[in-house]
Amino acid sequence: MTQNGTATTTPLPKAGGVVISVDAMGGDSGPATVVAGIAQFLAKAPDARILLHGRQDVLRPLVDKRRISSQVTLCDAPDVVAMSDKPSHVMRNGKGTSMWSAIESVREREAQVCVSCGNTGALMAVSMMRLRKIEGVNRPAIACLWPSRNASGFNVMLDAGADIRADQDDLLTYALMGASYARNGMGITRPRIGLLNVGVEEHKGRAELKVAHELIARAAPGADFEYVGFVEGGDLPSSRIDVIVTDGFTGNVALKTGEGTASLISELLREAFRKTPLSRVAALLAMTSLRRLSKRIDPRRVNGGVFLGLNGTVVKSHGSADALGVAAALKLAHRLAKSGFSDKLAARVAAFSAFTPEPGTTDAPEVDDKKG
Amino acid sequence: MTQNGTATTTPLPKAGGVVISVDAMGGDSGPATVVAGIAQFLAKAPDARILLHGRQDVLRPLVDKRRISSQVTLCDAPDVVAMSDKPSHVMRNGKGTSMWSAIESVREREAQVCVSCGNTGALMAVSMMRLRKIEGVNRPAIACLWPSRNASGFNVMLDAGADIRADQDDLLTYALMGASYARNGMGITRPRIGLLNVGVEEHKGRAELKVAHELIARAAPGADFEYVGFVEGGDLPSSRIDVIVTDGFTGNVALKTGEGTASLISELLREAFRKTPLSRVAALLAMTSLRRLSKRIDPRRVNGGVFLGLNGTVVKSHGSADALGVAAALKLAHRLAKSGFSDKLAARVAAFSAFTPEPGTTDAPEVDDKKG
Repeated sequence: MTQNGTATTTPLPKAGGVVISVDAMGGDSGPATVVAGIAQFLAKAPDARILLHGRQDVLRPLVDKRRISSQVTLCDAPDVVAMSDKPSHVMRNGKGTSMWSAIESVREREAQVCVSCGNTGALMAVSMMRLRKIEGVNRPAIACLWPSRNASGFNVMLDAGADIRADQDDLLTYALMGASYARNGMGITRPRIGLLNVGVEEHKGRAELKVAHELIARAAPGADFEYVGFVEGGDLPSSRIDVIVTDGFTGNVALKTGEGTASLISELLREAFRKTPLSRVAALLAMTSLRRLSKRIDPRRVNGGVFLGLNGTVVKSHGSADALGVAAALKLAHRLAKSGFSDKLAARVAAFSAFTPEPGTTDAPEVDDKKG
Repeated sequence: MTQNGTATTTPLPKAGGVVISVDAMGGDSGPATVVAGIAQFLAKAPDARILLHGRQDVLRPLVDKRRISSQVTLCDAPDVVAMSDKPSHVMRNGKGTSMWSAIESVREREAQVCVSCGNTGALMAVSMMRLRKIEGVNRPAIACLWPSRNASGFNVMLDAGADIRADQDDLLTYALMGASYARNGMGITRPRIGLLNVGVEEHKGRAELKVAHELIARAAPGADFEYVGFVEGGDLPSSRIDVIVTDGFTGNVALKTGEGTASLISELLREAFRKTPLSRVAALLAMTSLRRLSKRIDPRRVNGGVFLGLNGTVVKSHGSADALGVAAALKLAHRLAKSGFSDKLAARVAAFSAFTPEPGTTDAPEVDDKKG
């Protein structure tokens, strides 16, 4: 089946339905949580099949207990990528791991999409090495969903941390890939794109951002998105954009800052409601409304960063995801696989790189100082 | 009084008490809001005196209306720095502005500290040009307070956006200055410092962060702070650190992301409480508790980024601050002036640069590959 995996249950149907390759090990919460999440997901997705990669002796009882063996095929992989493993180490020595094996299933076209809760750096490194970048993409990116004031409830932000840097051309590619994700994954015909900066004024920010600003503005008409210009951190949940483009360092810090702020506030809120007898009564009365709010901003509901720019779709779930989080990541993977997103994105980026001048050449100064 | 300002009211006492130089113009909310904030502040600070810079014909009636003229000296400055003005433009043409005039009062030692709600870039540029950097500081920084789980309720983060980049030596300086601010401004004897990164593992992040990690760790014992290592965006409100060090681009995005997230949640919370009759009753019952929470995370209460690394203290208040926000910034300025913070910080940085080897030289590889 894969290099290391051996199918041991129901053989998969050759055609029809979505097949998701899942790395069962490597998350902080362990394989029992992953299997619980799969069971939650499968209950609502009867057409889906799962290739489950990991230690068979561990996974077999978990799958049997959940009574999902008719939809799940086990692929034995003896090793596990630890959260602390360096990506370079995993690339050299990771062939026996469940992560590697799960990605291999996508490479071999046995599954349309791969889901893992493991070490992000290693997942990206192995995905890049085995699936390869698509033409026109120098740095792949992770796109994540951000709770927003838009009707859909979410904005897309990329790069959320696939790479720690991005130059002007990468930022342009992120805009193209982000637009494609918003269009195909969220049904937004003409996504509005913003470039994250420290101010909305055109003279602000790093040099590469000013160049990216020009490149993205020029690309917008031909690539079916609207460019709204620079946006700030406060615009991440804004209803005037659908996609926010930034480098992976900034995006990762922003993502974790947003999550940290939300969790501080909900902690303080719980404290506030416990404070007095009156507030405890209030908490009871408001419970339904508060649950609705909490669901709206629950990171587990939007769990699943998507790697963009590779030959194949890989969904990274939170390392600390619980069963609900794993189920959400699987649901996202299912939707993307069904829409044929990976091929559509590749076609969009390829079309764009074929018809535009080399990035950079368009930015040669137009005034010759010697003549002026 | 200053280059452009002319004192027109009570002359200031030569000695004793704190004198705060305030830029009355340039904020989004206008001078009436600034004067209202001054009145709020002065009601609780009878020892303070204000030098108020701006258009006298506008300010005179506002000051008279608030009956604060015994503590306020007007300094006429005809021009205003707009939020959209480029810093370079203000540096060349800003001599007649209230911002310039306010900074000049600190330079001339007529006031111990300056407060402005105006254009951050211009305020930093003019402050740097007129007050000059202290010895040992290459890039000054803005330190801001971040709501946290610590007993004080706050952590310090710097740089919040004075500069858009910082190299390894700047990050070390930020650690020294941040520790000094936490010690003198917040009374934390041995501040715990974290360096913001995309992961806590030592092999993660950009090259300059890995070097800064080493430099700060080595500086810690001699500079009276504890270095806790790399931290992530989610640690900004953490109780295991007091000071978070990062470059100004990342810091600015993080700050605005945190504020944006908090404001999204409080919006959704208000919505949730309006949703049903039951939740509206709950809102009434929980009002006191919710107000307490809202006060805890209200950015206006911690309003005031402090410029660190200059000969003189400058407090930047939010451009959109209301009277409460302006009063908070004045209170912070008052506390810093009283503690003699500016001189203490300069002494700390100078002592450190005098007794340590040139940064960088300590990072030469200790193993000679040719011999190994």
